[in-house]
Amino acid sequence: MMNTHAEATADGFVIVGEDICEKVISRADAFDAVEAVFAAMARGDAYNFPVVREAIGHADALYGFKGGFDRTGLSLGLKAGGYWPGNMARGLTNHQSTVFLFDPDTGRLSALVGGNYLTALRTAASSSVSIAHLAREDSKVLGMVGAGHQSTFQLRAAVEQRDFEKVVAWNPHPEMLPRLGAVAEELGLAFEAVSPEDLGAQADVIITITSAFEPLIMADWIRPGTHIACMGTDTKGKQEVDPALFSRATVFADEVAQSISIGEAQHAVGQGVIAESDITPVGAVINGTHGGRGSDEEITLFDGTGVGLQDLAVAAVAARLAREQGLVTPVTF
Amino acid sequence: MMNTHAEATADGFVIVGEDICEKVISRADAFDAVEAVFAAMARGDAYNFPVVREAIGHADALYGFKGGFDRTGLSLGLKAGGYWPGNMARGLTNHQSTVFLFDPDTGRLSALVGGNYLTALRTAASSSVSIAHLAREDSKVLGMVGAGHQSTFQLRAAVEQRDFEKVVAWNPHPEMLPRLGAVAEELGLAFEAVSPEDLGAQADVIITITSAFEPLIMADWIRPGTHIACMGTDTKGKQEVDPALFSRATVFADEVAQSISIGEAQHAVGQGVIAESDITPVGAVINGTHGGRGSDEEITLFDGTGVGLQDLAVAAVAARLAREQGLVTPVTF
Repeated sequence: MMNTHAEATADGFVIVGEDICEKVISRADAFDAVEAVFAAMARGDAYNFPVVREAIGHADALYGFKGGFDRTGLSLGLKAGGYWPGNMARGLTNHQSTVFLFDPDTGRLSALVGGNYLTALRTAASSSVSIAHLAREDSKVLGMVGAGHQSTFQLRAAVEQRDFEKVVAWNPHPEMLPRLGAVAEELGLAFEAVSPEDLGAQADVIITITSAFEPLIMADWIRPGTHIACMGTDTKGKQEVDPALFSRATVFADEVAQSISIGEAQHAVGQGVIAESDITPVGAVINGTHGGRGSDEEITLFDGTGVGLQDLAVAAVAARLAREQGLVTPVTF
Repeated sequence: MMNTHAEATADGFVIVGEDICEKVISRADAFDAVEAVFAAMARGDAYNFPVVREAIGHADALYGFKGGFDRTGLSLGLKAGGYWPGNMARGLTNHQSTVFLFDPDTGRLSALVGGNYLTALRTAASSSVSIAHLAREDSKVLGMVGAGHQSTFQLRAAVEQRDFEKVVAWNPHPEMLPRLGAVAEELGLAFEAVSPEDLGAQADVIITITSAFEPLIMADWIRPGTHIACMGTDTKGKQEVDPALFSRATVFADEVAQSISIGEAQHAVGQGVIAESDITPVGAVINGTHGGRGSDEEITLFDGTGVGLQDLAVAAVAARLAREQGLVTPVTF
C-alpha cells in the first residue's frame, strides 16, 4: 500500500525535482495511478476541489490551482502554476507547475514535487487509460491530431495499450510533424502525414491534443468503431471536434462536471446536442459499473480535461519511488 | 523597492521556516506590508483569487487555498493549509499553513514560507491597520473579546496604534483570560476581566477574535465613538456581533466581496440591515479616497476576513528579510 504521508519526516517534507521525476516514474506507474484515481473518483472516494484559474494581467500569464483529496490513496494537495507564453524566449518551459502534497492527518506539507514532466505523463496516462478500457481490441491505426510537446507523450503511452501498426498524423502546422514521426519510427511503427479527413478514414483510435479554438475534426469523418480521446480542451472556448460527433458517440470523461464546463463537451452540451446525463465517468468503466464499449460499431469518445487528482496521484507515486531509491531531498521545516 | 521574485535563484527557490519567520519579521514590518496591500487592493492593483475551502471528510479537517496577485508588490502565489482539530493531541498547532510564492515573470516557485506564525501576525496587522486609520486618536481603553492563541497577537499589535492605558477583556471561557492578562501586564497596561456589557461600556476600541457562531456583543452595548474590529468570522455561519450594530456603524472591510460572503457582514447583509454598497474597503481610507471616521461620535466597524494577499505580503517581506540576513535555505529545483 502506498501511504506517502506517513513516510514524511516527522517535522519536515521532501523535495522531488523534475530530474528525479523523470528518473523514477514510468509510464506504467502513471497509468496505474491515474486508473486508480479515476476509479476512486467514480466511487466517490476521491474528489477534485473547485479549480482556480486566473489571467493575472502580467506577462500574459494564466495561473491557478487544481487540488483534491483521495481518501483511498490518502493524497491531499494541489498543483499550482500555469502558462507563461514568454518563457520559451528565456529558455524555460511555457507550462510551469509544482505539486504540493499535504499529510491528510495533520495538514502539514509532506512533499514538493516538480510538476512539468508529471503533467505530460499524467495527461498521456489519461488517454491511455481510456484506450485500455474503451478502444476496440483489434485497433491497428492510431490517429494523432496535434504535434506539440504533449503529442509525443500521448503517442508513447497510447501504443502500449493496443497492438498498433501505424500512426497517421495531422497538425495545423505541418512542419512540426517530423518530430512525431521520429518517435513513431523509434517505436517501430509506420508513420504517415495525412489530411484530417484521411486521418478519420484510417484511424481506429484518435487522440486530439491541440490548443485549438474551433473544430478540427468533423463528425462525418469518423468511422464506426473508432475510439477518440479529446485531450486538448481544458478552458472555456477551446474546441477540437465537431459537437455533432457527441450525438454519434458514447461519451466518457475524467470528471463530468469539468467536461461540461471547460472540457470538449462544453460545446455539445451548450448546443443541446447531448445532456450532462449522457456522459459517463470513465472510472465507472474501470469499476465495472458501466459496461464500456457495447459493440465493434460503436464510437466511443473520451473527454480528458485534466483534473488535480491526476497530478496528486502521479506526484505521490513519484515521491514514494524517489524515497525508496534515496533520491529525495529532505527538508526540516 | 521590494522585488522578491527577481532575487530568487535562477533555477531554484528558497525555504523560510517558521523559526526564521519569527526571527526576521516584526509587527511593524507586517503592519506596513498589510497596509500597503490593502491600499493596492482598493486601487485595483492587487486582487484575491476565489477562495477554495473544503471539509475534506478526514480528520475533521478544513483545507484550502487563498491566492492572489499584487502587481505593485509583484507577489503571486497562495497560502495552502487549514484547520486540523486533532493536531493539539499530537503536539502540533491546529492551524497549519504554508505560503508558496511564485515568480510572476516565469511562473516558477520562488519561495516556500512557513505560514503559521505569519497568519497570526498578518491577522493582528489587519485590525491594527484598521485602528491606525479609524479609531479615535484619544482612545484609552481596549476591549478584547476572545482570549485564544490569536488574541495575544491582536493585543500586542493594537496597543502600538494608540496610547492605551487599560485592557478590558471577556471570553466565553473565562479560565483563558489570565494569559491575555499577563501580556497586558507585560505591556504595562491595566487589565480587567469584565462582562461583555461592561466591556462595551468601557472600551474605546474593541477587537473580537473568537470562533463564535452567534452574536456575543449586542448593538446597544457599544458606545458612540467606538471602533470595533471583528476579526473572528471567516466562514459561512460564524458570527461575533449583533447585526443591528451594522446599522449604527460606518462599515469597512479588508475585501468587501469576502466580507459579505464569509465575513461578519454576511449576517447584516443577509438580513437587509445594510447593503454591500454600504461597506468601504479600508484601503480607500489608506489611499485617502474615503475620509474614514467622520466624528468623535461615529461608530466605525472593520470586518477583517483575512485575504490571501495579506499572507503573500507578509511572506514576501519575511523572505526578503531572511535573504538579506542569509537565513534562507536555497534549493536547486
